[in-house]
Amino acid sequence: MADKIQTQGITIKKEENFSEWYEQVTMKCGLVDKRLEYSRGFYGYPPWGTMILRSMETLFEKELELRSHLPIRTPTAMPIALLEKEQEHLSGFAPEIWKITHGHGGKKLEYPKALRPTGEAVMYPYFHYWIENYKDLPFKVFETRPSFRAERENAIFPLLRTCEFFWIEAHTVQLDNKHADKQVKEDMEVFDLIAKGKLAMPFMLLKRPEWDKFSGADYTCAYDTPLPDGKVSQIGTTHNLGTHFSRAFDVRYTDNNNEQKFCYQTSFGPGVGKILGMLAAVHGDDNGLILPPDLAPIQFVIVPIYKEDSKEKVTAFAKKAANKLKSFRLKFDDREGYTPGWKFNEWEMKGVPFRVEIGPKDVEKNQVILVSRLDRKKTVVEIKDITDTVLQGMLSELTKEMYSKAEKKFKIDKTDNYKDIIKKIDAGTHLVEIPFCNTEKCSEKLKEKTIKVRGIQLFAHGEKTVVECEQKSAEKAKGKKCAVCGKEAKVMSFVARQY
Amino acid sequence: MADKIQTQGITIKKEENFSEWYEQVTMKCGLVDKRLEYSRGFYGYPPWGTMILRSMETLFEKELELRSHLPIRTPTAMPIALLEKEQEHLSGFAPEIWKITHGHGGKKLEYPKALRPTGEAVMYPYFHYWIENYKDLPFKVFETRPSFRAERENAIFPLLRTCEFFWIEAHTVQLDNKHADKQVKEDMEVFDLIAKGKLAMPFMLLKRPEWDKFSGADYTCAYDTPLPDGKVSQIGTTHNLGTHFSRAFDVRYTDNNNEQKFCYQTSFGPGVGKILGMLAAVHGDDNGLILPPDLAPIQFVIVPIYKEDSKEKVTAFAKKAANKLKSFRLKFDDREGYTPGWKFNEWEMKGVPFRVEIGPKDVEKNQVILVSRLDRKKTVVEIKDITDTVLQGMLSELTKEMYSKAEKKFKIDKTDNYKDIIKKIDAGTHLVEIPFCNTEKCSEKLKEKTIKVRGIQLFAHGEKTVVECEQKSAEKAKGKKCAVCGKEAKVMSFVARQY
Repeated sequence: MADKIQTQGITIKKEENFSEWYEQVTMKCGLVDKRLEYSRGFYGYPPWGTMILRSMETLFEKELELRSHLPIRTPTAMPIALLEKEQEHLSGFAPEIWKITHGHGGKKLEYPKALRPTGEAVMYPYFHYWIENYKDLPFKVFETRPSFRAERENAIFPLLRTCEFFWIEAHTVQLDNKHADKQVKEDMEVFDLIAKGKLAMPFMLLKRPEWDKFSGADYTCAYDTPLPDGKVSQIGTTHNLGTHFSRAFDVRYTDNNNEQKFCYQTSFGPGVGKILGMLAAVHGDDNGLILPPDLAPIQFVIVPIYKEDSKEKVTAFAKKAANKLKSFRLKFDDREGYTPGWKFNEWEMKGVPFRVEIGPKDVEKNQVILVSRLDRKKTVVEIKDITDTVLQGMLSELTKEMYSKAEKKFKIDKTDNYKDIIKKIDAGTHLVEIPFCNTEKCSEKLKEKTIKVRGIQLFAHGEKTVVECEQKSAEKAKGKKCAVCGKEAKVMSFVARQY
Repeated sequence: MADKIQTQGITIKKEENFSEWYEQVTMKCGLVDKRLEYSRGFYGYPPWGTMILRSMETLFEKELELRSHLPIRTPTAMPIALLEKEQEHLSGFAPEIWKITHGHGGKKLEYPKALRPTGEAVMYPYFHYWIENYKDLPFKVFETRPSFRAERENAIFPLLRTCEFFWIEAHTVQLDNKHADKQVKEDMEVFDLIAKGKLAMPFMLLKRPEWDKFSGADYTCAYDTPLPDGKVSQIGTTHNLGTHFSRAFDVRYTDNNNEQKFCYQTSFGPGVGKILGMLAAVHGDDNGLILPPDLAPIQFVIVPIYKEDSKEKVTAFAKKAANKLKSFRLKFDDREGYTPGWKFNEWEMKGVPFRVEIGPKDVEKNQVILVSRLDRKKTVVEIKDITDTVLQGMLSELTKEMYSKAEKKFKIDKTDNYKDIIKKIDAGTHLVEIPFCNTEKCSEKLKEKTIKVRGIQLFAHGEKTVVECEQKSAEKAKGKKCAVCGKEAKVMSFVARQY
């Protein structure tokens, strides 16, 4: 469908004003509609944006299901008292809740409800019932549901920070800490497989420092990805929750000696809405979106080019070509009343990986022209050479090119010197590695410069556990001085400006 | 996973106490969990229930997508003012809204929000932007999202009437009324294909009388299905909305003469959560659920039966059989620590269409035993005869048997006599056809007996349009007297007690 503002195209250059470019791209390419002022933070998602979101959800869900996760659904609204119960035990749930005060017949509720800010306090009271004994473990589930935060008006930014946001929460219940640690590793593998392998999205996996972990977690691992403006953004987290929540919500199992034990829990949250926003930001260019082929609702769009006298011939040939592309997500754009140029422009904006051009000359030569969205490179392919293998090869190649291009822009550097940190970050370096004393005090000092300690890197050098990574980071810091206070460094830590 | 109360099995007979049987079946078979008293009306859905719900959503979504519907997402919360705007134009939106009064930092909202009670007022302000000219039409979208009603405490019943309910809303925007009528017919075809063909669910399609139509509709068609207790329940609706909403929300298009026109709209809402409840009610028996094969998350469950000395042999053979069943949704239940009898019971409760038993004797005879969930009929199949065609045949046959069994229980009758109506309905007849004057006054009189006028039947005799159906119904009523007031009958109408 058309869109009143869409046809104007992107009028801002990404390099010149990233933030306005982002607003235009997300709106004009049909990812999100924020024109209803009264609905700030609660957006509408037109078909194209919704199709991409669903496609991303499916990527994650499939990998989770392959690893024995099952889907569940739990309520959208929950008693505020329950959130407070969680707070008693765990301290500090976000106070940004949407409060529901009135119910049937306009009557004031005795126990007000909240729109769920996150899944733990909604799901775990059910886990109390659903888990009985050791045979039920591991219990692995996921829920694909929006959550809600009452964000500050001026903090709202489509897809990246909204009042209603889409994510998948995968939660597991385990026998012991060893199994929980193993699950954390599995979550990371899933994220790596999809983000790097399918979404062409570089990221760094960091263990957050103690003062920045999720308050109910033993430890928090997070996926940080680069933004064109030099900041990084967290697009997902994996937590080892230990027994903090199982104690708060009484999630126990009977072991094989008939003893009751508290379960160990993990949670994994890829922020699918946020990842979509980041994809637009990282891969997009001055013509609009560029979608990685595994995500794109349409991978190839065929645009026949003809005048009245060649219409029949070109259409017939294009249909023959379409038949050869049928294993892929294909759109045959034979809409009347639009010029080929208009169609080129529309599908370029929407980020379709390959355009297939077919004109009268191509019919004569028995060929089609494949135009890559990334660099508009044209590949002429004879119709007899169009095979699934060739096309799959082109899609895979495109994903790799996109990843490599994005990775080159992910600027990571290191320094031992406080002033250098600030200089590098001001110059657009995303992550700077520093020797660090690992104290909250030094973290606060960095915060004054709006720089945040992101944590230590995980699994960059073939370590097998989070503990090994911590040891390696400590070893690497040995003998060095903290880049902030000059005292003895305890770890090598990464710092960044965050979105 | 196990469930503390699940293992006890169903202890109530369906014939003896339908309502308590229904509660047990939905809870113990893992469709819904209502044990959290504070969460009344906002339920948790364990993996099995969620998998079935998702499977049903997918059935509808696929058929909609085949007919060019695209997915969209619109906000969960909307300003109450917007609902009131709709009311101004259309009168009488349900006042049962959940009211959100507080947002960021606990601050009272200047413009309170509501959890969406239905899609129109949330979606159509976006349609205003998304539709520009005649080339954009038909615009066909769907949204798979829960909606919310602040139901009376005592009206709440898991799946059938809840505060958070799952449905799919398919909305279309059309050039004119002719196209809207055609769309209504298409929606009905989709519903028929899925409900009758895949869910084995009999229903009658009725056009609601004027006083019982959706307030913003030109006319309302609804799908009524039988309950074991003699009532009927509405499991979906299709509305021709005319231009009522497009005028209220300013949804216009520019025609090919460059003139602005109000669009015609339709909406179609299969209540997937409610349909699931009805499926449990209609097909289930004293052992639990019976799932139609197209819906079942598991179509065949293999349960190997062995003692220690035959374990290896049976398992190897069962794996061979599993390989022959791999085109189907298959579970190989080789869990340790559970007896075959326990497993039989669990999968019977959960409604898996076929159990595949394999014991040492079957290995010797190179065969498996397929046990149908519907009647426990055993079919012995030699391993060489297990083909996709044979298995698909068994699944199709089972669906047909389920439909035929359910249809036999759908009691439809007719009478010209007022006292007979009540007698028949008290005796458990679901729908009674009567000659009817088609006035609200007579409808009110029936209501005193808790009987409701459901409307006239659509498309039972090869008619092509709703208008033709109305004509046929009027012809059939000619010369007859209204069964309620004795005055001239205008139509043949169906009446029923409703859930």
